[in-house]
Amino acid sequence: MNNELEIDRKAVQNDLERSANFGMVDTDDGIGRTVLTGTPANFAARNYFVDQLVTAGLDVSVDAVGNITGRWSPPECDDSADPVAAGSHLDSVPEGGIFDGPLGVYAALEAVRTLKRGTQTVDRPIEVVCFTGEEGTRFADGVLGSSVATGKRSVEDALSLSDGEITLESALEDIGFRGEGRIDASKWDSWVELHIEQGMLLERAEEPVGVVSRITGTTRCHIHIEGEANHAGTTPMHDRNDALAAASELILTIESEAQDIANHESNSAVATVGSLNVEPGAINVIPGTATLDIDIRDVKHSSIDRILQTIKDACESIRKDRGLSVSIKTPYSIPPQPMTERVRNALRDGSERLDIAPPTLSSGAGHDTMQVADVTDAGMLFARSRGGHSHSPLEHTDWLDCAFATQVLTNAVAKLAGAE
Amino acid sequence: MNNELEIDRKAVQNDLERSANFGMVDTDDGIGRTVLTGTPANFAARNYFVDQLVTAGLDVSVDAVGNITGRWSPPECDDSADPVAAGSHLDSVPEGGIFDGPLGVYAALEAVRTLKRGTQTVDRPIEVVCFTGEEGTRFADGVLGSSVATGKRSVEDALSLSDGEITLESALEDIGFRGEGRIDASKWDSWVELHIEQGMLLERAEEPVGVVSRITGTTRCHIHIEGEANHAGTTPMHDRNDALAAASELILTIESEAQDIANHESNSAVATVGSLNVEPGAINVIPGTATLDIDIRDVKHSSIDRILQTIKDACESIRKDRGLSVSIKTPYSIPPQPMTERVRNALRDGSERLDIAPPTLSSGAGHDTMQVADVTDAGMLFARSRGGHSHSPLEHTDWLDCAFATQVLTNAVAKLAGAE
Repeated sequence: MNNELEIDRKAVQNDLERSANFGMVDTDDGIGRTVLTGTPANFAARNYFVDQLVTAGLDVSVDAVGNITGRWSPPECDDSADPVAAGSHLDSVPEGGIFDGPLGVYAALEAVRTLKRGTQTVDRPIEVVCFTGEEGTRFADGVLGSSVATGKRSVEDALSLSDGEITLESALEDIGFRGEGRIDASKWDSWVELHIEQGMLLERAEEPVGVVSRITGTTRCHIHIEGEANHAGTTPMHDRNDALAAASELILTIESEAQDIANHESNSAVATVGSLNVEPGAINVIPGTATLDIDIRDVKHSSIDRILQTIKDACESIRKDRGLSVSIKTPYSIPPQPMTERVRNALRDGSERLDIAPPTLSSGAGHDTMQVADVTDAGMLFARSRGGHSHSPLEHTDWLDCAFATQVLTNAVAKLAGAE
Repeated sequence: MNNELEIDRKAVQNDLERSANFGMVDTDDGIGRTVLTGTPANFAARNYFVDQLVTAGLDVSVDAVGNITGRWSPPECDDSADPVAAGSHLDSVPEGGIFDGPLGVYAALEAVRTLKRGTQTVDRPIEVVCFTGEEGTRFADGVLGSSVATGKRSVEDALSLSDGEITLESALEDIGFRGEGRIDASKWDSWVELHIEQGMLLERAEEPVGVVSRITGTTRCHIHIEGEANHAGTTPMHDRNDALAAASELILTIESEAQDIANHESNSAVATVGSLNVEPGAINVIPGTATLDIDIRDVKHSSIDRILQTIKDACESIRKDRGLSVSIKTPYSIPPQPMTERVRNALRDGSERLDIAPPTLSSGAGHDTMQVADVTDAGMLFARSRGGHSHSPLEHTDWLDCAFATQVLTNAVAKLAGAE
């Protein structure tokens, strides 16, 4: 390994530990954090990040939806060349972990700090990026900042999103992070994001990092089943229109179809009914309505299509066999997204310089990178997650794995920026 | 029919219409009422009832738990003889109907008013009774006043019940209906309750009234399934411990078992999962826990036992096949209750005098009568419910059916009191 590109692993650990203080929650499962977009905790997390960008000598800019960029364009490089960008997000789910997001942001910053310390020159500017609202707990379904940076959503539309009380614009103004203009990811030469795996493949492979081949596609359904609420004691079994029994039939059909696809066609296929609400919900009343939220994912289009068709068929059976009315909405559908070979190669090369043979794996979770990959060359590096836990205080990535991953990211960014 | 025993159907209608004003709710489905025990609406409903008892010349007493009695003991009868009692309740579920309860109370009062108008003499006193808290929405699971009157629950225990904010004792004191002593139903010669059917059997039979043979037994289960909440995108199908999928399996097993018993062994058997709560309940998280409330009823013990055993077996399968932990609680179990032949005969005779051949039917709903039947001879008369609706503003019984039912009740009470 080239010593000139050796990262400072204590600096990364320090940044992540400091970042963990913002929105900290102390639970039975350990220390976590709640950092929703536009909250005081989010202000503190952003503010610390901007301080580190400034300390590192980067030019900071904030766009209209709060995406933050720290740009390094040393005199020897062509300032007008398309930059290499790297980063992730600082927001979290409620009671989420301390690595999901911040690891990718601070590793990208450390990559620039390392390059600045070295004597190698770069051909292109490098930008360290923090996207707004990746998790989607507040204001939108997720990947908010990157959807604006890739032109999929307008600035105006994003700013007018409401959490039910205030708009994103007001929330960003409140914390002083409603800037001007918008990051344009299509102008980037390339993009690379380091993130925790949130699965157990690397743990089982006993490797600290892996290179992502594809990001899963995600389709979400909202299903509303309308039966008839009635007295649980006086309504005979054959006179019932029980919305919950119908929902149960649907849930088991979805589970067995996804299991079948995972066993025989694509082992990454998953389908989940995560939420089910029953009305009126009293012990002595037959359920009149049931509302289900379904999340379907796979790296293969065909798996999602097959599960969706099975859901539609099952709903048709409920209509015909049970005589209930059923509505299906699919408000959210993002296709599977392959990562760019050039960026994957840079990550593989960067790993091999550390004598790591990184497994290739797909991402079952969505990330800002799935948006960015639509407009420029993009790739992702995963760091091993202990027990596969995420979105929970149980989330953990060993500091040594964080260091390995940061070093691989640094090597890859250096290569993409022409530092070799 | 003996004209001396002809009821005043306008008086009954007037009482029910006045009663409908207390706690009135105006909904899309029509006029209903919310009369929870100890509320101002309950005070108003009780107060009007007491006024009518006094106007009719009855001796009013209120016991420690708010059960109200209006006693008629004319000079010619043996005042020390065990009285014939009749009545029902004045409380309702939230947004309940206007007939469920009040019909039985005011029909019993009209029976006494009719006997008083006539020239026939009675051998025994007659008592018109309103029980406290039959519906069980506040303070207890239901049939509260009758459980005290039958010695199944002590006065002290009942008075100390809390709705989470105040005790029954305080609530009754607040409305001036915390009296002294307790009604002792075991001292009654007999008891008869008129109630709306809450089912569609009489409507289908095209008969205004029916005589109840048995009241259903009810067993309630609370089941808690503990799986593991995890990321919906990154947790493979074979690594899941999905509490909702397990709950769905259980729900369908319960439904098919109850259907099978209803088809082949006892058509009144029913089992209902009325409430299901899923945690954490987010679209992108595999459900970690599911909590179900189950209500099982039949007039046959064996049906309830069989369904309960099936539930236990299904829970064992969930433990073994899915590896989840499951707990079962059965906090409430009331056995099926047969009605007394002597009282059923009085109701049948009373119907036949109107040239009605009343169907015999069982009650799928619980009633105060199921408690009273444990300590004295008891019977129930059902009046036809339009569409079988109840516990809803859709609840309706035609005024003519109310009149028929009141006349039958009057005839039966007269017979039980030796008026013939």
